Amino acid sequence: MTAGKLMAVLRGGRFVPPPVWLMRQAGRYLPAYRKVRATTSSFLEFCYTPDKATEVTLQPIRRFDLDAAIIFSDILVVPDALGQKVWFAEGEGPKLEPLKDPAEFGKLSRARLPEHLAPVYAALRATRASLPSNKALLGFAGAPFTLACYMIEGGGSRDFAMTKRWAYQHPESFGLLIDLLVDAVVDHLGHQVEAGADAVQLFDSWAGVLPESELFRWSVQPMQRIAQRLREKHDVPVIAFPRAVGPAILMYRRITEFAALSIDTGIGAHWVANELQPHVALQGNLDPIMLVAGGRALEAEARRILNKLGGGRFVFNLGHGIVPQTPPDHVARLVEIVRGWKPGA
Amino acid sequence: MTAGKLMAVLRGGRFVPPPVWLMRQAGRYLPAYRKVRATTSSFLEFCYTPDKATEVTLQPIRRFDLDAAIIFSDILVVPDALGQKVWFAEGEGPKLEPLKDPAEFGKLSRARLPEHLAPVYAALRATRASLPSNKALLGFAGAPFTLACYMIEGGGSRDFAMTKRWAYQHPESFGLLIDLLVDAVVDHLGHQVEAGADAVQLFDSWAGVLPESELFRWSVQPMQRIAQRLREKHDVPVIAFPRAVGPAILMYRRITEFAALSIDTGIGAHWVANELQPHVALQGNLDPIMLVAGGRALEAEARRILNKLGGGRFVFNLGHGIVPQTPPDHVARLVEIVRGWKPGA
Repeated sequence: MTAGKLMAVLRGGRFVPPPVWLMRQAGRYLPAYRKVRATTSSFLEFCYTPDKATEVTLQPIRRFDLDAAIIFSDILVVPDALGQKVWFAEGEGPKLEPLKDPAEFGKLSRARLPEHLAPVYAALRATRASLPSNKALLGFAGAPFTLACYMIEGGGSRDFAMTKRWAYQHPESFGLLIDLLVDAVVDHLGHQVEAGADAVQLFDSWAGVLPESELFRWSVQPMQRIAQRLREKHDVPVIAFPRAVGPAILMYRRITEFAALSIDTGIGAHWVANELQPHVALQGNLDPIMLVAGGRALEAEARRILNKLGGGRFVFNLGHGIVPQTPPDHVARLVEIVRGWKPGA
Repeated sequence: MTAGKLMAVLRGGRFVPPPVWLMRQAGRYLPAYRKVRATTSSFLEFCYTPDKATEVTLQPIRRFDLDAAIIFSDILVVPDALGQKVWFAEGEGPKLEPLKDPAEFGKLSRARLPEHLAPVYAALRATRASLPSNKALLGFAGAPFTLACYMIEGGGSRDFAMTKRWAYQHPESFGLLIDLLVDAVVDHLGHQVEAGADAVQLFDSWAGVLPESELFRWSVQPMQRIAQRLREKHDVPVIAFPRAVGPAILMYRRITEFAALSIDTGIGAHWVANELQPHVALQGNLDPIMLVAGGRALEAEARRILNKLGGGRFVFNLGHGIVPQTPPDHVARLVEIVRGWKPGA
């Protein structure tokens, strides 16, 4: 069996109980992570140090026996590799020297990407070498729209007004940026696959700020183009995570290039069981705050999700990343609940 | 005709072209607003000065001939009236002395609410006296869950982790807070109706952070209870705005106490035309950034929404509040587009 239950589900099978991993499972909620993290001040430098990235990627697998490791990295390594200035201010989130107009696209170049991101690929190779063969290794990247949001706003934003205004007023030049990002993401994910990633996840974290009329062009299509090219070249399964898009997620279920859709916390398991799961494998969608709360609330909610979705093609996960205040013991308990689940019990 | 087209739609009719008003239509994007706002430093004091609140409420009606005025106020006047400390820090958004535990609920009391919020009701009376009879006057309040979010977090938040953790771990005490807020909101909206509001809107701005399993108890039910009591006592139409709840909005369409559902920018007009509009009048859902962009993008998007929803029971509006950088001329143009729209044209 290669890369275990997760890969089996992504290749068209199903498993009872379903495989389980957790978005941002390598991170600040783990004391062991904080210990390694403390040895490097710059967050990007930390991401680019293969032995440290490898170590924190493996920590949650050792501690919780999860079914997949996801390489420790960040979606903003792509703009960084393209030549945009990116840094992480302590407690403030990511910052970028914002792109002001299309004339600045000329500064961005894919030429340096493979060399610049070589440490990420080195970490993937080292992780794959240490990871048991029944555990999947996931690579990932930000989807083009989400990357464009950060690149234009210069960081996070409440409404991504500058990005959307650009897309609405000047769709041609915005399209050029998206095209460049499609190519860059294909490069980056392709190198991750060559370095040992068994599957990859595309995070379109900000797709939900687009109205449905703009979603196809700026989120569905770019993600589809990436998945198509990766599957042609590498035959690698792609998990798409268009976060907070509401009922418009129906547009994504038709894209046969996606091996699975990751669903956020807000979408009800009952609705997706009827509308999406007959068409595509699903992954999600526990509220990370349930994992903070623990106890009976966590048990009830995890079982509710399993009862709705666990009988079909499903990967148990959160609907959003683990938050730093999560007690690690709650993660252990969640894995127990998932592993102990039986349909109809 | 009393209070015009908007009231006709909320009472079960429809209009071609549909009535139009815009969330946060009285606000910083208008030079006339900024002039009045500059005369008072404290934002709450500004809300509590009837002649100023009246003036800014009327400004967008005079300038754009919109079909409804919404009283200029804030959802946080309710926690303020209950005795919680609320203030607005310039450029930082609202701040509250956060509720730390249920023992602090004892500090909150509805007894002072009618007197404390008398200036809001005075502004409603003055506005109704100046407003043409074919224009509706709207009152509003935050829904209990959204108010609880602000009251527990002490302001806005990315994930409202403290509020949700409380609700998940201690649903009984969280339920007591929600019950108190249901009563307070019924009081506040009832007084607004007595002062001249023709209809009221309930904003559940943060409902979207709840998983579907928690939504019924903390958002749908509290809003339904409020609407039920208001309709019994005042026979006033209630517009419910559960923002960003995705497909879970299907739970709200069954609540016959809601005269209309306001829909956010993310929900596609095509989906709601099929799933919601046969059951309930709709209001929304233009992206406010389209109003910033203007030009052809605005025209195309406004017409797309009108073509999907304008033939049914519909109120044209935004999917979220107007943003400060909106050019007022774009608002004038939007009203022209709506008024000039014909089905099938």
